[in-house]
Amino acid sequence: MGRCCPRGPQRRWGQKFSTEDMEKEWETLRAWKERMEQELDRVVAFWMEHSHDQEHGGFFTCLGRDGQVYDNLKYVWLQGRQVWMYCRLYRKFQRFRRSELLDSAKAGGEFLLRYARVAPPDKKCAFVLTQSGLPVKVQRTIFSECFFTMAMNELWRVTGEERYQNEAVEMMDQIIHWVREDSSGLGRPQLPGTPAAESMAVPMMLLNLVEQLGEADEELAGKYAELGDWCAQRILQHVQRDGQAVLENVSEDGKELSGCLGRHQNPGHALEAGWFLLRHALRKGNPELRAHVIEKFLLLSFHSGWDPEHGGLFYFQDADNLCPTQFRDPEYGEWFGYLNREGKVALTIKGGPFKGCFHVPRCLAMCEEMLGALLSRLASVPAPTCSPPAVPAP
Amino acid sequence: MGRCCPRGPQRRWGQKFSTEDMEKEWETLRAWKERMEQELDRVVAFWMEHSHDQEHGGFFTCLGRDGQVYDNLKYVWLQGRQVWMYCRLYRKFQRFRRSELLDSAKAGGEFLLRYARVAPPDKKCAFVLTQSGLPVKVQRTIFSECFFTMAMNELWRVTGEERYQNEAVEMMDQIIHWVREDSSGLGRPQLPGTPAAESMAVPMMLLNLVEQLGEADEELAGKYAELGDWCAQRILQHVQRDGQAVLENVSEDGKELSGCLGRHQNPGHALEAGWFLLRHALRKGNPELRAHVIEKFLLLSFHSGWDPEHGGLFYFQDADNLCPTQFRDPEYGEWFGYLNREGKVALTIKGGPFKGCFHVPRCLAMCEEMLGALLSRLASVPAPTCSPPAVPAP
Repeated sequence: MGRCCPRGPQRRWGQKFSTEDMEKEWETLRAWKERMEQELDRVVAFWMEHSHDQEHGGFFTCLGRDGQVYDNLKYVWLQGRQVWMYCRLYRKFQRFRRSELLDSAKAGGEFLLRYARVAPPDKKCAFVLTQSGLPVKVQRTIFSECFFTMAMNELWRVTGEERYQNEAVEMMDQIIHWVREDSSGLGRPQLPGTPAAESMAVPMMLLNLVEQLGEADEELAGKYAELGDWCAQRILQHVQRDGQAVLENVSEDGKELSGCLGRHQNPGHALEAGWFLLRHALRKGNPELRAHVIEKFLLLSFHSGWDPEHGGLFYFQDADNLCPTQFRDPEYGEWFGYLNREGKVALTIKGGPFKGCFHVPRCLAMCEEMLGALLSRLASVPAPTCSPPAVPAP
Repeated sequence: MGRCCPRGPQRRWGQKFSTEDMEKEWETLRAWKERMEQELDRVVAFWMEHSHDQEHGGFFTCLGRDGQVYDNLKYVWLQGRQVWMYCRLYRKFQRFRRSELLDSAKAGGEFLLRYARVAPPDKKCAFVLTQSGLPVKVQRTIFSECFFTMAMNELWRVTGEERYQNEAVEMMDQIIHWVREDSSGLGRPQLPGTPAAESMAVPMMLLNLVEQLGEADEELAGKYAELGDWCAQRILQHVQRDGQAVLENVSEDGKELSGCLGRHQNPGHALEAGWFLLRHALRKGNPELRAHVIEKFLLLSFHSGWDPEHGGLFYFQDADNLCPTQFRDPEYGEWFGYLNREGKVALTIKGGPFKGCFHVPRCLAMCEEMLGALLSRLASVPAPTCSPPAVPAP
């Protein structure tokens, strides 16, 4: 994949690749695609076998290594992510068009509709619920609500039931109101010492939702077009220090903040932001933005976020190379979720409050799609031409 | 120290120790005492040199390895702890009776009086303040207020100024009201799914305050006597599973809770609770309680909380040996605060949101006092007798 490059005088495919080279390339891609398929199958099988709550609907996500449920709490964002993941697989992959997936996604969606909101019709969702749906904790952020929205929109796409789409759009409008007009409904105390900071997570998440709701839907794509531009501009403000660092938190007018909060970096998060921005640049047909994003969010994050001693991306970094106060280990794959810096398994759990049926299968599904696209391109063109690499939808 | 035992037929000192043995024992204790003195001097020197905010009063506690201030935020509980620590050292150790310590403690106390409360005269304190004292975050717990109380009481003990003691007692009464009568002032939402759980930290902290306020003060000791008994009874409820486990969270009527919350263990915390309970048992003259506490909170925690592979106490454990979802590393000494499981330095910071000038110097000061007490006992008795080992005050 690294050899696919923009069309240019120095590296034309025709000059570099013989037919034999191309066959070898094709074979490598095919083997990787097969591996992604297998891994995705195994990951989905794991969640299908262990996570479904047949009694109340929804999903157990606190699962041990062998799938044992070690806690029956239900984290709303992980419920929403799993509904989304199942629907997306059902919609995009022929082999996942199975009624068990759809039925479980619908049961998860109904669980969310019934219990996610703390005090309906108010739209604020709980962060975590008991197994039967009673609220345990509320977070003063927008993320439970965002994944609720993703779940509902994707449910509508596979079932065609308008009520799901209505839920998605109503929640989206509420989220936009909280972010851009009045955040008091989130319940955060207004304290004079709290800096007017913006976390990159917020415009990232909203940009992801703009794409989710706008897919093949001109009306909503139009409705949220200005929001998409606003999100992109806000994310780009997080490139600081003469373009040498992506900072997780900046002031609302795009300045570096003082202290740990201002210096905080999360390279994996910057890469994810880069992915969403790349998709945005493609939709806008903006090659300058595309080049900027590749340089600042993808290449820079890989270079400065990589652990030169043990490999892997740091979960947290400090832009002045001071010691971060967060104690968490880097998050890797489904097989295990949490490794220490040396790459040893730190936590044997497969799921918990932050990890469920989402990041790993989403990544595997994306790899499989990318590899499939590359393979069909290689198979269909006798003299290979170069076009921008595929950037799959989230 | 381990050889000092209750008087009993099997192990009388006279049978075991020759004069030569005693001289060796004395020499060992003397060497350890010297080491504790040196370490305590170095730890206090570190905080004296790097943490004082000459501009606004109070202390910087986010310090790097070499004392560099990496954030100027002021965590209220660490401000309170440092004021307490300085005053306690000033009061109890001749060599720390220095005006710089007292002046810094007073400046810290004044900073707390001026800025700790979010909306005076309401007593709720901020969790963290800006350098100049503006509130940044509020925690919906009692711990900022508890360390405020400890600071004020200890300031009163060294200065004799009644206004400090009035602040301490008023805050104490507010804390008791929150814990035993009405917690709504803490701002926690009442959600139907939240279990009616008690964290061991709450009665532990209150028992610590009962001792702090009651020291050489018969009136307050009497006022809080019933509270002390209530705290002890509540802490003892955390011994579960037929006496084989100390659990951090139990139901309010002393039953094990379901899920991770119920299985959560923190061996270092159980040891600290045991220390406070031992002091309580000594005040009450209750040898059965003393024996129970030694067995369940001290010996049991050391046995089940010790990492057999790498040594050291686990920070977190699950009573069913499942994998805990907390990611933190065990907290050790001043030299470094945070090690990973293998004992390597995980974080190079000397202070941060949870570690300041408190746990390490408190421990060193205690060791020095204990060793001093043992040495004078050895020096003064020609034929050694046995009495209960010293249990220093927090």
